[in-house]
Amino acid sequence: MTFKAYAKLEKKPGFTLIEKKIDSNLNPHEVLIKVLSVSLCGTDVHIYNWDNWAQKRIKPPLVIGHEFAGKVIKIGRDVTRVKVGDVVASETHIVCGKCEFCRKGMAHICENTKIIGVDVDGAFAEYIKMPEDNLFVDTSGMDPKYLSVLEPLGNAVHTVYHFETKLKDVAVVGCGPIGLMGIDLLKAIGAKKIIAIETIKQRLDLAKQLGADVVIDAKNEDVVERVLAETDGRGVDVVCEFSGNEGALRQAVSYVKKGGAISLLGVFSEEVKLDLNEMIFKGITAYGVTGRKMYENWDQIKALLEMKKLNLDKIVTHHLAFDEMEKAFEIMKNKQCGKIVLSLEEV
Amino acid sequence: MTFKAYAKLEKKPGFTLIEKKIDSNLNPHEVLIKVLSVSLCGTDVHIYNWDNWAQKRIKPPLVIGHEFAGKVIKIGRDVTRVKVGDVVASETHIVCGKCEFCRKGMAHICENTKIIGVDVDGAFAEYIKMPEDNLFVDTSGMDPKYLSVLEPLGNAVHTVYHFETKLKDVAVVGCGPIGLMGIDLLKAIGAKKIIAIETIKQRLDLAKQLGADVVIDAKNEDVVERVLAETDGRGVDVVCEFSGNEGALRQAVSYVKKGGAISLLGVFSEEVKLDLNEMIFKGITAYGVTGRKMYENWDQIKALLEMKKLNLDKIVTHHLAFDEMEKAFEIMKNKQCGKIVLSLEEV
Amino acid sequence: MTFKAYAKLEKKPGFTLIEKKIDSNLNPHEVLIKVLSVSLCGTDVHIYNWDNWAQKRIKPPLVIGHEFAGKVIKIGRDVTRVKVGDVVASETHIVCGKCEFCRKGMAHICENTKIIGVDVDGAFAEYIKMPEDNLFVDTSGMDPKYLSVLEPLGNAVHTVYHFETKLKDVAVVGCGPIGLMGIDLLKAIGAKKIIAIETIKQRLDLAKQLGADVVIDAKNEDVVERVLAETDGRGVDVVCEFSGNEGALRQAVSYVKKGGAISLLGVFSEEVKLDLNEMIFKGITAYGVTGRKMYENWDQIKALLEMKKLNLDKIVTHHLAFDEMEKAFEIMKNKQCGKIVLSLEEV
Amino acid sequence: MTFKAYAKLEKKPGFTLIEKKIDSNLNPHEVLIKVLSVSLCGTDVHIYNWDNWAQKRIKPPLVIGHEFAGKVIKIGRDVTRVKVGDVVASETHIVCGKCEFCRKGMAHICENTKIIGVDVDGAFAEYIKMPEDNLFVDTSGMDPKYLSVLEPLGNAVHTVYHFETKLKDVAVVGCGPIGLMGIDLLKAIGAKKIIAIETIKQRLDLAKQLGADVVIDAKNEDVVERVLAETDGRGVDVVCEFSGNEGALRQAVSYVKKGGAISLLGVFSEEVKLDLNEMIFKGITAYGVTGRKMYENWDQIKALLEMKKLNLDKIVTHHLAFDEMEKAFEIMKNKQCGKIVLSLEEV
Repeated sequence: MTFKAYAKLEKKPGFTLIEKKIDSNLNPHEVLIKVLSVSLCGTDVHIYNWDNWAQKRIKPPLVIGHEFAGKVIKIGRDVTRVKVGDVVASETHIVCGKCEFCRKGMAHICENTKIIGVDVDGAFAEYIKMPEDNLFVDTSGMDPKYLSVLEPLGNAVHTVYHFETKLKDVAVVGCGPIGLMGIDLLKAIGAKKIIAIETIKQRLDLAKQLGADVVIDAKNEDVVERVLAETDGRGVDVVCEFSGNEGALRQAVSYVKKGGAISLLGVFSEEVKLDLNEMIFKGITAYGVTGRKMYENWDQIKALLEMKKLNLDKIVTHHLAFDEMEKAFEIMKNKQCGKIVLSLEEV
Repeated sequence: MTFKAYAKLEKKPGFTLIEKKIDSNLNPHEVLIKVLSVSLCGTDVHIYNWDNWAQKRIKPPLVIGHEFAGKVIKIGRDVTRVKVGDVVASETHIVCGKCEFCRKGMAHICENTKIIGVDVDGAFAEYIKMPEDNLFVDTSGMDPKYLSVLEPLGNAVHTVYHFETKLKDVAVVGCGPIGLMGIDLLKAIGAKKIIAIETIKQRLDLAKQLGADVVIDAKNEDVVERVLAETDGRGVDVVCEFSGNEGALRQAVSYVKKGGAISLLGVFSEEVKLDLNEMIFKGITAYGVTGRKMYENWDQIKALLEMKKLNLDKIVTHHLAFDEMEKAFEIMKNKQCGKIVLSLEEV
Repeated sequence: MTFKAYAKLEKKPGFTLIEKKIDSNLNPHEVLIKVLSVSLCGTDVHIYNWDNWAQKRIKPPLVIGHEFAGKVIKIGRDVTRVKVGDVVASETHIVCGKCEFCRKGMAHICENTKIIGVDVDGAFAEYIKMPEDNLFVDTSGMDPKYLSVLEPLGNAVHTVYHFETKLKDVAVVGCGPIGLMGIDLLKAIGAKKIIAIETIKQRLDLAKQLGADVVIDAKNEDVVERVLAETDGRGVDVVCEFSGNEGALRQAVSYVKKGGAISLLGVFSEEVKLDLNEMIFKGITAYGVTGRKMYENWDQIKALLEMKKLNLDKIVTHHLAFDEMEKAFEIMKNKQCGKIVLSLEEV
Repeated sequence: MTFKAYAKLEKKPGFTLIEKKIDSNLNPHEVLIKVLSVSLCGTDVHIYNWDNWAQKRIKPPLVIGHEFAGKVIKIGRDVTRVKVGDVVASETHIVCGKCEFCRKGMAHICENTKIIGVDVDGAFAEYIKMPEDNLFVDTSGMDPKYLSVLEPLGNAVHTVYHFETKLKDVAVVGCGPIGLMGIDLLKAIGAKKIIAIETIKQRLDLAKQLGADVVIDAKNEDVVERVLAETDGRGVDVVCEFSGNEGALRQAVSYVKKGGAISLLGVFSEEVKLDLNEMIFKGITAYGVTGRKMYENWDQIKALLEMKKLNLDKIVTHHLAFDEMEKAFEIMKNKQCGKIVLSLEEV
């Protein structure tokens, strides 16, 4: 039997829809999944465009894509965490379980991580095999077309809950899909004042709809002045940086409160120049966010789904069919969107 | 009655030895102290040299100096924490006790801090008045000529104990007096491997004497390569940055372990360019150190003194008389020294 | 000028309404307040009844009462945190600011604490003097008849936020006024499942109204079995113990999850017998709650009021006039109530 | 091929030396180890004596013993953490890796734990198979006759490092082998004052030799009074409870400092009666210690061994041959000992 998948076959821009053979042999802890939905991430765009990062990291041929949800159709001999028929989302870092970091509960920085769709074959495909450890079984009954986005949601969870944000003033810098998720998550646990900062009008509107208390158009307003005005002149307790924009981060250093904290998720296109003295004299803590805390962040996702606290339907702005992949990349390029999900037929 | 003091009288380089009148009236919580020893800090050099920073911050006339030890000779009506005859060192930040930061136990970043010798009259004087809250009563019987350095010791305590360092590999970047204190402090609580990084030979020797397990001459060695070689290729758990040197910090970002931490005390002469992505992907935490946690860090100093764990006699490399202030500044300039202490006669 | 106050004049049950002279001299940091509302606490009942605890602790004559709100009518020379006209609630522990605990940010266990209405004259009076440090200025515009209850609310904040409770399963044991506040507070920050346990029907109804996800009638249900059934057999992450009931705590030890936590606020009438081995093998952490973290818990209250997250109107079940004190104690005795507030006329 | 092992064959007191067949087939992650040394634990005595606990938990036939060190002689197909020839000690909890607790980094309370020598065949044998995850490879070159005691050392690490003990006053209650290890560990990381409390003279002497600053003979001194006298009347910051004695714990509640902490490792023979109100009003935190934090505590052991900080030779008071098991139990019974190690011949 064969299945369809989008793959990078050559060292140049674009993807190819291919047919692959299913190997239905499973390792004792492996699970075979029928993919029901996938979603697009900026990383996929890098690979599609075959930019500098992609040229260094990606080794074709490779099935791409890492955000997905699906149904378990076969399990390996020793699998106990999932059963056939379960609807699952998935942690996308396949970790070694043996290195110092895995063994001290920091698998998100495992030194042997393999990311699906980047280091090994990915999820923009009709079928995928995953280790049982990586799977998240949905028990909330949510439509699978929202479950593929739990992986980036986990990044947002990691970013906004790493520092104490309940009852605190928090800036969300950058309101792309993950920043929007950040707002949703902050709302769920009672952040005091959520200040969203963004340059694209549509995203500011989404931020407002999701409950941001203040939205700042960074193109047309003095961001530092406005944030200070909204916080009695003292600044926000926590900054959640999703933009990867040097100017935005420099502003954040100015408007973060003394003793405050900055969570850094956005990746920067080059080195960043900062007034470190300001961070020192203000006693700021900064933290670099990578992946999802395994599996604390997934437990938090589970709780949020069961509590029906999230508004993923507002964050997923486009629903397409699996064969509309090219169209999805077109929409991504112009940035007038939240998350884009492509659904596959259930067989 | 009058007393001698070193003061900045004019907006230009240098100090003047002046006579001031003692006003022996004390507020209810104020304490009058006969100064027994003072020590020099880089800040004093900035004020002496009348550099850019000094021109912006200092308003002459001002008695300078902030590191001191002395004997209590008179106490205000409501003072209970100290009594006449006590030998004391002192926290040099006079804080308001009322702002948000003071009230949540973060007085080291009080928004109304006044620093003696910078914002108000200081300690290079025969007498000084201080609020009782600021005083640290020595009960260890230590010679006062080592007590004046407890204030910078407190900075070192803040820097090296903020993150977990016991049983950890730790880099001490910059082995001036505070860096050397950091080594002494790390030794006291069982850091696993202390790696000292410095360019000046005499300071590397002092680092070795204080128990650094590895000393790296940053001028003549490949620092990153050496640190990795000393740590199974994984890097140090914690970096204590005392140098304020951009290049040294850039190296630190490379050799800090995944999931590790950087404590930043050294002040930088200008903005710093960093590969933030490396910090993000490695999941690093950075913390800006200002002042001393009040009064947790002083409690730790008290414990260390009582345990006789410190080797301040190795860190104080020069003992001078109070009227040798100019000579002291000369020695400071060429950096071939640890801490310089000037003693006053007891009356 | 004189003012009315309820006082314990003799070493026997009951209170007396007395007239006291106002001494309008204020210390530099003191504030004179016209009381606008007061509320009753179990401690007041102990003093009223002149039970064993009261006989040991209370030294008549003493104006009783500690929960109050009022308006500032005069301030001492050095007062800056409040101004005449401010509406305030108050921390009721007057602390020394000098002991080891105050100096390390743990003023709630100050070794020289004086509690108003217990150790010094209290708040069931038309006027009271307080140190400015203790005052909480309301900026939310809330009716003063709800502000007097911020002090016990602070106990609830301390109890339910000490351990991580957002997105967690939490048991609230005992639904008197402070337990009910606990439910309200847990709801505000996104606890996952709030399980209220109580024996009195009216209080279970209030718990339900405040949003408890599960209410268990401890008189008629098997509490341990029910809690486990509601939590996949694993138990709750955190227990908030407000009851001071040995049997209820013993149950809690059985239904708290492995690795979980117990916050203990309820005071026990005698020593408690526990299966400590169960706590040890399950890796449980228990914490004794006293007072309010000063002033972190008050900052959290401020945020909650500004966010309009609380439903104090549901928790205050009875509003009386100041001269109905005896009636208030009658209602307290039969326990068919939430909080009882007595209002004074504004002059 | 066969090997010798001590086993519980019948439901009555005593052990039997048996011959077992080696099954040299290994699962992919399994390791076959030639045992070089074993040591005795109180648990082994319970099993030997066939007391109430043993009757409920143990299902003969069972090879007993869990503390051991050995040499790797064969590894399963997928094993990478150890290689043939490695000298290893071992975590004795075989955990599932799949339950909520394992997945959130709390494998020490795994809900499917199997303990060797208790739930599955143990280590008082010439050979044993273990999962590779459990093995600790010694790189310090220590004599294997001290490596078998790393497992109880891990309990001591868990107990004394769970709360902050560096530069703190710490009481060690009960100076059996694990309490003695606690003293050694506290010394290594700069505890301020270590107060050892014990009734047996020989153990008090060992405590003193290991560096306890104060030793209290609980039989002949007023423990509470003495601890308070040694700590300015405020008590110790942290209590490490190794005794499992109700009276000793009741004393600890009295002499622990306000805001202090109690680590509970000792198992109690029955329920314990406590003055919980004292714990509440003092703001105490108590924590139940089970097993070793996997693998943080083992990393700490690794650091300590590499630093040559430990004095296990003082704690291991008896060295016997493997066939002197009965004699070892005799010595254990009279308690005039530290740890007893039995060595096996290397083949």
